[in-house]
Amino acid sequence: MSSPLRNGDTPPPRLPSPAVGRHHFHSTVSEKKIRRLNALILLLRLAAFCFSLAAAIFMATNSSRSPGSHSWLHFHPFRLVLASNAIVAVYSFFEMVSSIWEILKGVTLFPEPLQLWFDFSHDQVFAYLLLAAEAAATVEAQGLKGAHTCSPESAFCVQAYISVALGFAGFAFLALAALGSGFRVACYVITGSRFHL
Amino acid sequence: MSSPLRNGDTPPPRLPSPAVGRHHFHSTVSEKKIRRLNALILLLRLAAFCFSLAAAIFMATNSSRSPGSHSWLHFHPFRLVLASNAIVAVYSFFEMVSSIWEILKGVTLFPEPLQLWFDFSHDQVFAYLLLAAEAAATVEAQGLKGAHTCSPESAFCVQAYISVALGFAGFAFLALAALGSGFRVACYVITGSRFHL
Repeated sequence: MSSPLRNGDTPPPRLPSPAVGRHHFHSTVSEKKIRRLNALILLLRLAAFCFSLAAAIFMATNSSRSPGSHSWLHFHPFRLVLASNAIVAVYSFFEMVSSIWEILKGVTLFPEPLQLWFDFSHDQVFAYLLLAAEAAATVEAQGLKGAHTCSPESAFCVQAYISVALGFAGFAFLALAALGSGFRVACYVITGSRFHL
Repeated sequence: MSSPLRNGDTPPPRLPSPAVGRHHFHSTVSEKKIRRLNALILLLRLAAFCFSLAAAIFMATNSSRSPGSHSWLHFHPFRLVLASNAIVAVYSFFEMVSSIWEILKGVTLFPEPLQLWFDFSHDQVFAYLLLAAEAAATVEAQGLKGAHTCSPESAFCVQAYISVALGFAGFAFLALAALGSGFRVACYVITGSRFHL
């Protein structure tokens, strides 16, 4: 699963990067920028992970055992929120491990092109999935209010609102991470290396 | 409103493009690829325009004058669908004019960096807006079915479903156009020119 040799610790001499000839400081300047971009993406993924995990937990615990009470299981959009937030949390955790691996070892977990395309496509698709789920759950929550399901004694609606809000925050960070990973893919497509900045 | 000179008809000699030194056919090969990318984006915008316009019209005409009948005006998500589809249709039309201008004149309508960032940011934001609106309207339409609003005599629900489906198709094409314009922005950021391919 290790990446090709071009993906090593001291990549610039091996790369067909057209910028090498332009200035001698390419190596150090680029490395600094790469580290900053990688750290930024890692930070965004950490935020997306925290928010989506919290949203999933809030939704999963949103039911009581007393008879006649409501549960997230009875509402399709709330199920979708739980599922998509859980998926995003697991994915973000995996991506964080992969990012830390890349920062520590200097090589990507999968071969470079596969890793870049995997990151970007999943970021983008999961961001769309999460947004659709949260928008659907917002309408459902609004409908509950109209149907008098939200009694003052029951925390069901409040907990559902909090879960949806946390999910929206998770979406925002995932969408920003998608911009970063999209830029890395474009870098790779245009220059043949994610190291060109 | 005209762009700077680097944005002319025969750009490669004026550009600091690092690819020029690599192969002599950069100019013709690149121009062909640029034309293909621009034509592809134009095609995607045309599709997004058609679908979102159709969705907006379907939703706007979804009401009858008979008393007791339903109208899209009574449902917030359906209003959102109409508004976002109308916005996307107007935006796509403007972008098509801008694309045709670029193909005919060889220069962008706004200065190059502004145009590229404008295209990408609006594509991405409007794609998210449209997806959220359609997801919300899907839940609302499902709720209508459960509440027995959809009688066999009334075409209200069917017309709402069709509008939502057309909106989803518009979203798909807009999201693909966002990929294309995102690639153009990345090109510009990395190489200093959208002409580098």
